[in-house]
Amino acid sequence: MEAVPTPKKATRGRAVSPPGCRREKSPQERKVYMDYNATTPLEPEVIQAMTEAMWEAWGNPSSPYTAGKKAKDIISAARETLANMIGGKPQDIIFTSGGTESNNLVIHSMVKYFHENQTSRGDVVEQHSPEEGARPHFITCTVEHDSIRLPLEHLVEEQVAEVTFVPVSRVNGQAEIDDILAAVRPTTCLVTIMLANNETGVVMPVPEISQRIRALNQRRAASGLPRVLVHTDAAQALGKRRVDVEDLGVDFLTIVGHKFYGPRIGALYVRGLGKVTPLYPMLFGGGQERNFRPGTENTPMIAGLGKAAELVTENWEAYEAHMRDVRDYLEERLQAEFGRVVLAQCRMLLASVGASCHSDQGDRPSPVLLSCGIPFDVARNALRLSVGRSTTRAEVDLVVQDLKQAVAQLEGQA
Amino acid sequence: MEAVPTPKKATRGRAVSPPGCRREKSPQERKVYMDYNATTPLEPEVIQAMTEAMWEAWGNPSSPYTAGKKAKDIISAARETLANMIGGKPQDIIFTSGGTESNNLVIHSMVKYFHENQTSRGDVVEQHSPEEGARPHFITCTVEHDSIRLPLEHLVEEQVAEVTFVPVSRVNGQAEIDDILAAVRPTTCLVTIMLANNETGVVMPVPEISQRIRALNQRRAASGLPRVLVHTDAAQALGKRRVDVEDLGVDFLTIVGHKFYGPRIGALYVRGLGKVTPLYPMLFGGGQERNFRPGTENTPMIAGLGKAAELVTENWEAYEAHMRDVRDYLEERLQAEFGRVVLAQCRMLLASVGASCHSDQGDRPSPVLLSCGIPFDVARNALRLSVGRSTTRAEVDLVVQDLKQAVAQLEGQA
Repeated sequence: MEAVPTPKKATRGRAVSPPGCRREKSPQERKVYMDYNATTPLEPEVIQAMTEAMWEAWGNPSSPYTAGKKAKDIISAARETLANMIGGKPQDIIFTSGGTESNNLVIHSMVKYFHENQTSRGDVVEQHSPEEGARPHFITCTVEHDSIRLPLEHLVEEQVAEVTFVPVSRVNGQAEIDDILAAVRPTTCLVTIMLANNETGVVMPVPEISQRIRALNQRRAASGLPRVLVHTDAAQALGKRRVDVEDLGVDFLTIVGHKFYGPRIGALYVRGLGKVTPLYPMLFGGGQERNFRPGTENTPMIAGLGKAAELVTENWEAYEAHMRDVRDYLEERLQAEFGRVVLAQCRMLLASVGASCHSDQGDRPSPVLLSCGIPFDVARNALRLSVGRSTTRAEVDLVVQDLKQAVAQLEGQA
Repeated sequence: MEAVPTPKKATRGRAVSPPGCRREKSPQERKVYMDYNATTPLEPEVIQAMTEAMWEAWGNPSSPYTAGKKAKDIISAARETLANMIGGKPQDIIFTSGGTESNNLVIHSMVKYFHENQTSRGDVVEQHSPEEGARPHFITCTVEHDSIRLPLEHLVEEQVAEVTFVPVSRVNGQAEIDDILAAVRPTTCLVTIMLANNETGVVMPVPEISQRIRALNQRRAASGLPRVLVHTDAAQALGKRRVDVEDLGVDFLTIVGHKFYGPRIGALYVRGLGKVTPLYPMLFGGGQERNFRPGTENTPMIAGLGKAAELVTENWEAYEAHMRDVRDYLEERLQAEFGRVVLAQCRMLLASVGASCHSDQGDRPSPVLLSCGIPFDVARNALRLSVGRSTTRAEVDLVVQDLKQAVAQLEGQA
């Protein structure tokens, strides 16, 4: 668990210079960053790759001369490293402006796909569920990122799609496979379940979901029903644990650079892009990314994303081991200092909470925590602490000490 | 005119290191870049701003602590510099992933707007044009960039919209105002005409179009018809000539960083965003850009875009004067060496042509040049030469010499 009650706003996540850029600081000046789920600093090698590309590969990747060709080569290499990181094929990777676009693109694409499918075998779907009309049905869970939840809610509002939000278990925070399977309708086109939750850290049973859906698809094929595709938003998992599209068995996977020490662009993995799995573009233009995502390619950002992926492929085991160790130490120290009971009963404390996208929502508790069954007052006072590649045990000690002082100060005021 | 016949592929646009990064090169190694309309190198100050932001402002701009606040401040400052460059208000600027997205967003938005409008006063529109049904109508011209032409053609295919492609004058290459006005229907929602063409360099009469549409809108308001909005894609004009949204009188203006020595992101100007002029988002997510364009902000790219805009605001007169001078010198030298007649009659030459997005279309002549009335054989052999801030007369001499040798070689082969 990464959510614990917080003493005061000022102690929530503190800024530190990124690794490689550190200078000695006085104790007062010293800050410890523990909000790596919000964003990560760029690795120095990533900055270097981006800077080199800015100087050397500024040509238009579509231009036939040297400057353009160099840019094109960098993009190809990055596509390959990205594919390596997730065990996929380079031709199945599309670069996007970020996770929000990747997630929206999958959903948009499935609406289009459903209608194309309906045109060819709509009668079968209709026959199975005349009451649904011609609307595609999506299945997701209640703790998804807003870039999944909001586009789906928008489609419901516009009466373009139907959506089932499956609740997560109050025991382990996971979306339950049987609930997902039970929600499938003849018109279901997509199941989208995040790989790891950005607030609770809970890892979802995506391989099992894909497996069950695959089995179901065989039965659907026999009755002439279109297959259900599976998407996972891997934003919070990449760089923290092994992510392999074969093990996961997904058709789509969202990649977000700035969550694994890379730049603020993203990518989308599409299994057998355009052949096995369809993708319908949201944008139309100059034909880049084989028309799936036009717009002059952002070479430096793509170079940085490639480098960040390379680092993950080379070091994920070390990263995972280190982060697990530091996280365990943090939990241990928090429990030793505050105890389980205090942590659950600190009801007088005020703090901001949840994903950083919602920092302007004031005191409203995180809907994600509420969905997981965390009581309102506890959720309202929750603090998200997340560790990174360079977090040390000494930093954990500093943070716990800081929290302790802040709690004592507030208890004195009470 | 920037289009002249070309002797061979190898002489079309050559790579040079960006300004500030130049080392001495041997004559054989010397390359002259004259494809600034495809993309521009990044100014050293822009790279510096981006690098600084990568090191110092990597926090999530939505986070309340220092690293996040710094990022937020950089984004605010960039929004202001961008607004300054075009004479608009900072709150009317939305950052996007690039020109393709900005253009698609305007078109998407107008479709939504039309239907919202129809709901409130559809009866009036219906009454004026029962034969049109409920489809929004767009007016554009035949030489627009693919990021305008293709999304519009897609809407026509999907039977979502109607589009009039107004031809350009075979005399001056401009879209003609009377043609545009004549094309307006009761269902017309948008006129979109680029500010400067990327292949011919022709500047369109956007201020006059806006003025005439404004007058028309007053008459439309009197008959209860919704107003027609005006968009211009300023990708090729920014950094080359003064661009002022007040002088232009447009409701939307597309900004593309990599055409004015900035990074590969873009922005969209929307006059009185959300108050005077509506904008309907294509993406849904974390609420960034006031929900008009969610996704964690790309701070380093935005910092670079801001710096590039600042340079334009400070230096546009010098840039314009220099580029005009070098371009005039290029035309003069080309005419002196080849003469008008040869330039128009070099029919045996093969070369790639047109906008860089189409470099994979092989020998097909540019539709833009054909639209301007350039004969097929001339268009097929056209070469786009475009100069930049650092192009010198000496470089022009080198290029003309190079062309001359290549032509002589081909004539020897003929």
